Amino acid sequence: MAMRPSHVIRYVLEQYKSYRVPNVTQSLPSWYTKGTNGSLDSWSRCVHGSVALTQKKAERVPLSSERFPQLKRGEFARVTDGDLQVFERLVASRVLTEPGDIEGHNVDWSGTCRGAGQVLLRPKTTEEVSAILRYCNGRRLAAVPQGGNTGLVGGSVPVFDEVIISMSLMDKIISLDEISGVLVCQAGCVVDKINGALEPHGLMTPHILGSKGSCQIGGNISTNAGGLRMLRYGNLHGNVLGVEAVLANGDVLDCLSTLRKDNTGYDLKQLFIGSEGSLGVVTAASVLCPRIPGAISVALLGCDSFAQVLQTYDAAKKMLQEILSAVEFMDRASMEVVQENLQLTCPLGAHRYYLLVETSGSNAAHDEEKLNSLLGHLMEKGMVDDGTVATEPSKVQSLWALRENVAVALRADGCVYKYDVTVPMSRFYDLVVDTRERVGTDATRVVGYGHLGESDIHLNVTCPKHNEDVFDALEPWVYDWVAKCKGSVSAEHGMGILKRDYLYHSNTGPVVLLMKQLKGLMDPKGILNPYKIFPD
Amino acid sequence: MAMRPSHVIRYVLEQYKSYRVPNVTQSLPSWYTKGTNGSLDSWSRCVHGSVALTQKKAERVPLSSERFPQLKRGEFARVTDGDLQVFERLVASRVLTEPGDIEGHNVDWSGTCRGAGQVLLRPKTTEEVSAILRYCNGRRLAAVPQGGNTGLVGGSVPVFDEVIISMSLMDKIISLDEISGVLVCQAGCVVDKINGALEPHGLMTPHILGSKGSCQIGGNISTNAGGLRMLRYGNLHGNVLGVEAVLANGDVLDCLSTLRKDNTGYDLKQLFIGSEGSLGVVTAASVLCPRIPGAISVALLGCDSFAQVLQTYDAAKKMLQEILSAVEFMDRASMEVVQENLQLTCPLGAHRYYLLVETSGSNAAHDEEKLNSLLGHLMEKGMVDDGTVATEPSKVQSLWALRENVAVALRADGCVYKYDVTVPMSRFYDLVVDTRERVGTDATRVVGYGHLGESDIHLNVTCPKHNEDVFDALEPWVYDWVAKCKGSVSAEHGMGILKRDYLYHSNTGPVVLLMKQLKGLMDPKGILNPYKIFPD
Repeated sequence: MAMRPSHVIRYVLEQYKSYRVPNVTQSLPSWYTKGTNGSLDSWSRCVHGSVALTQKKAERVPLSSERFPQLKRGEFARVTDGDLQVFERLVASRVLTEPGDIEGHNVDWSGTCRGAGQVLLRPKTTEEVSAILRYCNGRRLAAVPQGGNTGLVGGSVPVFDEVIISMSLMDKIISLDEISGVLVCQAGCVVDKINGALEPHGLMTPHILGSKGSCQIGGNISTNAGGLRMLRYGNLHGNVLGVEAVLANGDVLDCLSTLRKDNTGYDLKQLFIGSEGSLGVVTAASVLCPRIPGAISVALLGCDSFAQVLQTYDAAKKMLQEILSAVEFMDRASMEVVQENLQLTCPLGAHRYYLLVETSGSNAAHDEEKLNSLLGHLMEKGMVDDGTVATEPSKVQSLWALRENVAVALRADGCVYKYDVTVPMSRFYDLVVDTRERVGTDATRVVGYGHLGESDIHLNVTCPKHNEDVFDALEPWVYDWVAKCKGSVSAEHGMGILKRDYLYHSNTGPVVLLMKQLKGLMDPKGILNPYKIFPD
Repeated sequence: MAMRPSHVIRYVLEQYKSYRVPNVTQSLPSWYTKGTNGSLDSWSRCVHGSVALTQKKAERVPLSSERFPQLKRGEFARVTDGDLQVFERLVASRVLTEPGDIEGHNVDWSGTCRGAGQVLLRPKTTEEVSAILRYCNGRRLAAVPQGGNTGLVGGSVPVFDEVIISMSLMDKIISLDEISGVLVCQAGCVVDKINGALEPHGLMTPHILGSKGSCQIGGNISTNAGGLRMLRYGNLHGNVLGVEAVLANGDVLDCLSTLRKDNTGYDLKQLFIGSEGSLGVVTAASVLCPRIPGAISVALLGCDSFAQVLQTYDAAKKMLQEILSAVEFMDRASMEVVQENLQLTCPLGAHRYYLLVETSGSNAAHDEEKLNSLLGHLMEKGMVDDGTVATEPSKVQSLWALRENVAVALRADGCVYKYDVTVPMSRFYDLVVDTRERVGTDATRVVGYGHLGESDIHLNVTCPKHNEDVFDALEPWVYDWVAKCKGSVSAEHGMGILKRDYLYHSNTGPVVLLMKQLKGLMDPKGILNPYKIFPD
C-alpha cells in the first residue's frame, strides 16, 4: 500500500470556507447547463431566492395532478380576486400572480413534481405569516410553505393550486451569543448566509449540506436535514434549541428558547422538526452552533471487501473518536461515474469500495498523528488495500469533490432513479448488490454511495432516458427491501408526495394513526401542505 | 499562580469506572445515615429497585393532599377488590398492596411529596403494561409510572391514590450493536446496569447522572435528563433513537428505531422525551452510545471575578474544542460547605468562584498538551488566579468529589431549598447575589453551583430547619426572577407537582394551550400521571 505524503496546515477561516462542498446551483459543471440532461438543463436561482427552474423549462415537467391521477384535489376553496385583494393588504406588494414569476416555484429541484399554484406570497415577518394563515384557514385555502426548494420528494411545491408561501424574504439574523454559540434567525435564512454571519465569530452551523447555498434553515428544520457532519455534531433534534412556528389557524407558537436545558412541559418545538410544514410554518429558530475546527484532514481509502469497510469504520471510530467528523462511502461504480462523466481524477487505483474519512480538530499536528496511527493500524491489519491522506485545503477539497460530485455526475447518464434510505449497517451494501441483479443490463449503472457513519445509503440507478421497465423493477421493490430489514424508506428529505405511499413501510399502524390524529389536532381543516406525508 | 504538577495516565475501563461520581444511595457519608437530616435520615434501596424511604420514615412526610389543600382529587374511580383481582390476572403475583411494601413508593427522593397509593404493579413486559393501562383507562383509574424515583419535583409518586406502575422489573438489555453503538433495552434498566453492559464493548451512555446507580433509562427519557456530560454528548432528544411507549388506552406505540436517520413522518418518540409519563409510559428505548474516552483530565481553577469565569469558559471552548467534556461551576459558599460539612480538602486557596474543566479524548498526551496550552493562556491573560490539574484517576476523582458532593454536604445544614434553573449566561450568578440579598441572615447559606456549560445554575438555600419566612421570600420570587430574564424554571427534572404552578413562567399561553390539547388527544381521560405539569 502506498501512502501519499501529507501536509499539515492549520485552516484559516477563508480556507475552511473555500473547501466546503460545491453548491448545487453555483458549481454545476458546464455540460450541465448545456442541455445534456433533458428537462433539467437550465436551473437558475430565481429572483425570489429559491432554487427554481425557468418558466420555459418548468413547463416541460408534467403536472403532478396528471402524473398521479389517483390524487384528488381536496375540498379547499379556490383563490378568488377577493382573496388576492386581501393578500395585497396583508403583505403589500409581495403578492405574485404572473405565471413567469410563479412557475419556477411550482416545480421541485429534481424536476419531478409540478403543481399549479397561482399565487405566491412573500411575507417578511412572523405577523404576516400569521395573518396569511389565519385568513387561509378561515377561507379553507390550502397553502404550501416553501424554503429553498431543494428537497427531493416534492414536499415544497404545490400539488394542485395551493397558495405558495415563500419564506425567502424572512432572512434576518436576529441574534448571536458568541459565548454560548446560540444563533437566532428567521426561517428563510440560507445556510450559507448563516455561516457567513457565524464565521467571524469562529462558529458554524452544526449541519452542512450539499445544498447549503440555497437551502434555508426553516426547510432544514422542517425536513430534519442531517447532512455531511451529523456523525460528529448530531441531528437537529439535539441542536435546534428553539422554534417559532405559526399554526394553521394563525396562532404564533413561541418556543424560541435559547437555552440548552429547558424542561418546562412538552418540548413542542420537536413537533416541527421533520414534519414537512404540515403542522405549522417555522418562522424562526435558535440553533446551537459549534466552533469551526482549526484543522481538517481527509483520508481516501480503498477496500476490496465489505468486511474490510466495516472493520475500517470500526477502527476509525475507536482510534479517532473525538476528531472523527465524517465517514463517507463510495462503491467502484460511483468512483467510475465521476471519472467518466466529470473527468475527475481518483488518486487510488480501482477498488470495490472507497471510504473517505475526515477528521476535524483544534490541533493539526495531533490530528495528523492520530490519523497516521489509524492508517498504520489499517495497513498492518490488512483492513485497507490502498490509501491517501490530504491536509492541505486544495487536496482535501479535491478528495471531497470525488464524493460530492457523484450526484451531479450521474445526471450525465440521462435519467436517474434516486433512493436515499437507511438500512442496518450489516446490510448496507446488500441493497446495491440485489438491485444490480434485479435490473440487470437495462440500467446504465447501479451505484451505491452515502453516509456510512449514519448507515444512510444513496442507491442510484441510471438509464439513458426514463425506462418504465427499470422503474417498475425498482418501485416498490426497493422500499419493500428496506422495510424487510427494518430500515427507513426516507433517510433524508421526508416523505413529501413521492414517498407518501410508503409511510407504512417504516411505521406501524398505531404510529401512523397517532400522526394523523396529531395532524387533525393541529390543522383540523388540513390546509397546511396537503397531499404530503400520508397515503390516502 | 501555582500550577500543580500533573500526571498523564491512560484510563483503563476499570479506572474510568472507579472515578465516576458517587451514587446517591451508595455513597452517602456516614453522618447522612445517622439522622442529621430530619426525615431523610434513613434512605434505603427498597426491595423493588427504586429509591425509597422505609415505611416508618415515609410516614413522617406529610401527605401531598394535605400539603397542597388546593389540590382536588380528580374524578377517577377508586381501586376495588374486583380491580385487584383483575390486576392479579394481568401481572400474576406482582401486585403489591401491603402498606409496608408500598409506602416507600408513595414518597419521592427528596421526601417532599407523599401520595396515598394503595396498589403497586410490577409488570415485566410491554404487553403487561399495555394490559394494565387498557384496564385502567376503561375503569378510569389514574396511574403513575415510576422509574428509579430519583426526581426532585414529585413527578414519580402519586398525589392521591393513583395506581403505581413500577418499571423496575423491566430491566432487560435487548440488544447492542457494537459497530453502530446502538443499545436497545427495557425502560426499567438502571443507568449503572446499562453502563455495565456497555463497558466491555468500550461504550457508555451519552448521559451520566449523579443518580445513575438508581435512576432508570425510562425515567431519564421521561424527564429529558441532561446530566454531567451534556456539553459534550448533547441531549436525549438527539441521542435517543427510538422509544416504545404504551398510550393511556393501552395501544403500544412502536417507535423503537435503531437508525440514526429516519424521516418517515412525524418523530413521535420525541413526544415522550420530557413529558413526565403523562402522554404514555415508556417501556423500551434505543440509545446511541459514544465510546468511553481513553483519557480524562480535570483542571480546577479559581477566579475572583465573574468576568474571569466567562472569559475562562470562552477560552476553554475555543482552545479545547473537541476534547472539552464538562465545565462545572462552584461559588465560594459551595466550596466551603463541602469543606465544612464533609471535611473534603480543596487544593486551591479561597476564591470567589471555581471552575472544574474536564477533558476527554483518545490520546492522553495530546489532551495534556491542549490543556496545558489553555492553562498557560489563562495565566498569561490573568483570567484565572490559581489552578491545579489532575490526570491520575484518583486525583481526577478527588477534584470531581468537591463538585459532586455539594448537594450531599448541604443537607447537613438541615433544611435545603433547591432551585435548578437555566438563565442566560450573562446573568448566571446574579440570581445567587440577588437571593443572598433577599433572604439576608435568615438563611444559613445561599450557594450557587451547577453546569456552567449549559447555563444551568443550582441555587440552594439552607436553614437549620424549615423556615416559613425564608420559603416565602424564595417562592415565587425565584421563579419570577428567572422568568424575567427569559430563563427556564426547570433545567432538569421537569415540572412534576412542585413546579406546575410556574409552567406559564417559561411558556406562553398558546404554547401551554397546545400542550393541554396534546394531553387531551393522547390521554382523553387524563389517567396518566395526573395533577402533574399543568396548573389548575
